[in-house]
Amino acid sequence: MLSVEEATRRVAATVRLLPPEFLALPLAAGRILREDLRADRDFPPFNRVAMDGIAVCFAAIATGQTEFQIERTQFAGQPPTPQLDPLAATEIMTGAMLPEGTDTVIRYEDLLFRTDEVTGHRYATVVVPPIHTGHNVHAQAADRRQGDLLLPAGTYLGAAELAVAATVGAATVAVTRFPRVAVVSTGDELVPIATRPLPHQIRRSNALMLQAAAEQVGAITQTFHFDDDVAVLQQNLPALLEQFDAVILSGGVSKGKADFLPEVLRELGVEQVFHEVQQRPGKPFWFGKRPEGAVVFALPGNPVSTFVNFYRYARPWLLAIQQPATALPSTGPVPAILATDVSFRPKLTHFLLVRLEHAANGQLLAHPERAGGSGDLASLLASNAFLELPPEQELFSAGTVLPAWRFRD
Amino acid sequence: MLSVEEATRRVAATVRLLPPEFLALPLAAGRILREDLRADRDFPPFNRVAMDGIAVCFAAIATGQTEFQIERTQFAGQPPTPQLDPLAATEIMTGAMLPEGTDTVIRYEDLLFRTDEVTGHRYATVVVPPIHTGHNVHAQAADRRQGDLLLPAGTYLGAAELAVAATVGAATVAVTRFPRVAVVSTGDELVPIATRPLPHQIRRSNALMLQAAAEQVGAITQTFHFDDDVAVLQQNLPALLEQFDAVILSGGVSKGKADFLPEVLRELGVEQVFHEVQQRPGKPFWFGKRPEGAVVFALPGNPVSTFVNFYRYARPWLLAIQQPATALPSTGPVPAILATDVSFRPKLTHFLLVRLEHAANGQLLAHPERAGGSGDLASLLASNAFLELPPEQELFSAGTVLPAWRFRD
Repeated sequence: MLSVEEATRRVAATVRLLPPEFLALPLAAGRILREDLRADRDFPPFNRVAMDGIAVCFAAIATGQTEFQIERTQFAGQPPTPQLDPLAATEIMTGAMLPEGTDTVIRYEDLLFRTDEVTGHRYATVVVPPIHTGHNVHAQAADRRQGDLLLPAGTYLGAAELAVAATVGAATVAVTRFPRVAVVSTGDELVPIATRPLPHQIRRSNALMLQAAAEQVGAITQTFHFDDDVAVLQQNLPALLEQFDAVILSGGVSKGKADFLPEVLRELGVEQVFHEVQQRPGKPFWFGKRPEGAVVFALPGNPVSTFVNFYRYARPWLLAIQQPATALPSTGPVPAILATDVSFRPKLTHFLLVRLEHAANGQLLAHPERAGGSGDLASLLASNAFLELPPEQELFSAGTVLPAWRFRD
Repeated sequence: MLSVEEATRRVAATVRLLPPEFLALPLAAGRILREDLRADRDFPPFNRVAMDGIAVCFAAIATGQTEFQIERTQFAGQPPTPQLDPLAATEIMTGAMLPEGTDTVIRYEDLLFRTDEVTGHRYATVVVPPIHTGHNVHAQAADRRQGDLLLPAGTYLGAAELAVAATVGAATVAVTRFPRVAVVSTGDELVPIATRPLPHQIRRSNALMLQAAAEQVGAITQTFHFDDDVAVLQQNLPALLEQFDAVILSGGVSKGKADFLPEVLRELGVEQVFHEVQQRPGKPFWFGKRPEGAVVFALPGNPVSTFVNFYRYARPWLLAIQQPATALPSTGPVPAILATDVSFRPKLTHFLLVRLEHAANGQLLAHPERAGGSGDLASLLASNAFLELPPEQELFSAGTVLPAWRFRD
């Protein structure tokens, strides 16, 4: 049977980067950038006043001058006017261009103002003199130079990235298009949410779970439910395999008599990449691909198995097809410290539900949660991650560092 | 001047929980539940078969019986049929009800099958006998009992929570309605993204940044830009103060001559809660509220100041108005370990841009990033969090644990 490592490698081998599309910048939040964005001018583009106050010549300060006549006032957004008298000052606001003929800004807090009653002229007295030229000035190109690469292709466009893109005038940007995902549940025992189930029935929950989880990583999803009937599957699956980037099925892949899904998929031209992985929960995971078209994640139907397989295999795949490999973010597991001893006997990789805690000393601790097995959907509620325990080991003592796959903040 | 702690307390004091609305469950992803959801029956609702195989009486196994005639086959989703012969077996599929007259399941992997050529009867031989009654059976109510509280009001509805809600038949749920946020930028020096700015102008970026950041926590936003003109603000702000839960402004609150926003807001009936916080960046932060209606976050316009103030004050507020206080999630900072020495002289709380790293030993490390000051928007790109350094201390040595506010994964 396939190891988790090998299954991961084979899933990753099917990753093909989705094509880009062009969007107005405000619509691109949460998307992956597919072009390099460079500074179209220096940052700041001019010697930018960083405090409200007065602009002066530092040379005058250096000679001991403390009183300055206000020549004029310069607001942000006004075209700059040079200061004529090197011994005078320009009253000036944050964001304005530093006027020619000045080089230093003194903020209001360090000044006293007076108006001459006869002439009407205004004067500022410097109480706390600046100690160097350029004080309170954000010099042109201090941060970035024109042509600098600010946002390389592959960048996730969050709030800060959108602001930088706006600043360089990227009104339209190339971003990866949404992955299209069909979510299919199977199982005759499953009835719609609004139905009162008979004693031997349960309500459909996996499709909704997979839909929400796929949409969290940017997928456009459509959900379907098919009965455990070969003819129904043969009729309905081909269109899904044509129209979607991925088809995620839950149920129908374990060893049971009604689990004919792998056979139907093979008949429909989906090449089996693997069936069964050396792991618990989720061993009967089936994975395949069409030469042209969708990949198929056929996950075992027990809710916890479905959930764990999605977060361990399908979610990273959905992120990878959106993002150039060179820029892959940290979508994988993070190292966490096991808080209590755990033992697991079978020679299987064990995905252990845990609650991650940011301890006061800066450590990330993983507290194992009592779980009722792969059918105990509610056990997911108390946890926010699962640890990956390797198969060759039986006892894991408190303090061991293991990879944690987080599924909730 | 107000401490960061006191400013936080005063912002929190304005939190009023938003009213609920009712949504079809699939539309409720990412929302906060506003009703208790309980198990409408036991989980599992019946003795649920956990493996494909055969169901038998353990008593027969205990006597040493190894061969069982298959009486019939029971699929998931079929109404249950009792097994008549206590020495026979029922072939059975995962998810099915355990038939009356049986109590234990043996999986296919532990069986050999043969068909009698004369009678056509099928027989299973047990290769690996089960060691206790109830093996491979997920007993009724093993996980939860009817009436158990599964999802308390205040729960964030992620993928697992939606699945649990579906399982208990919550086709419609009460959730907090979206916060409505108006994002307003001011500043005559700001021009639209698609415009080529004159040398003294820069493009608008803060509104887009605030919009994306607010939408990440579920807000419905609308953006506006107003010139630095008292009359324009007096005319346009009243409608925003009526129609939105929060108005977030950037620019116009520092000490400059053109920064008349606080005065205009007071004239429009917005009570000033505070102006200026003992912090860097973002000191000129102004915060107010209307007796009935919106709160106003008036943030200084330097991009990094705007950004840090949003994540430090406005984001937690937007989360708090959606979620009952008893169920507040960990939306605050996490403890992180400073990776290098840092010094900061002014008697201000310092928000230090850092890159958080999950180290291989399970520690969360914070690497300070070179930053160009509050105007250096691009410095946000290399970091994913800011540390909160308290004002009374000047030197922070490597190894110190400090609160980290994460703004990107």
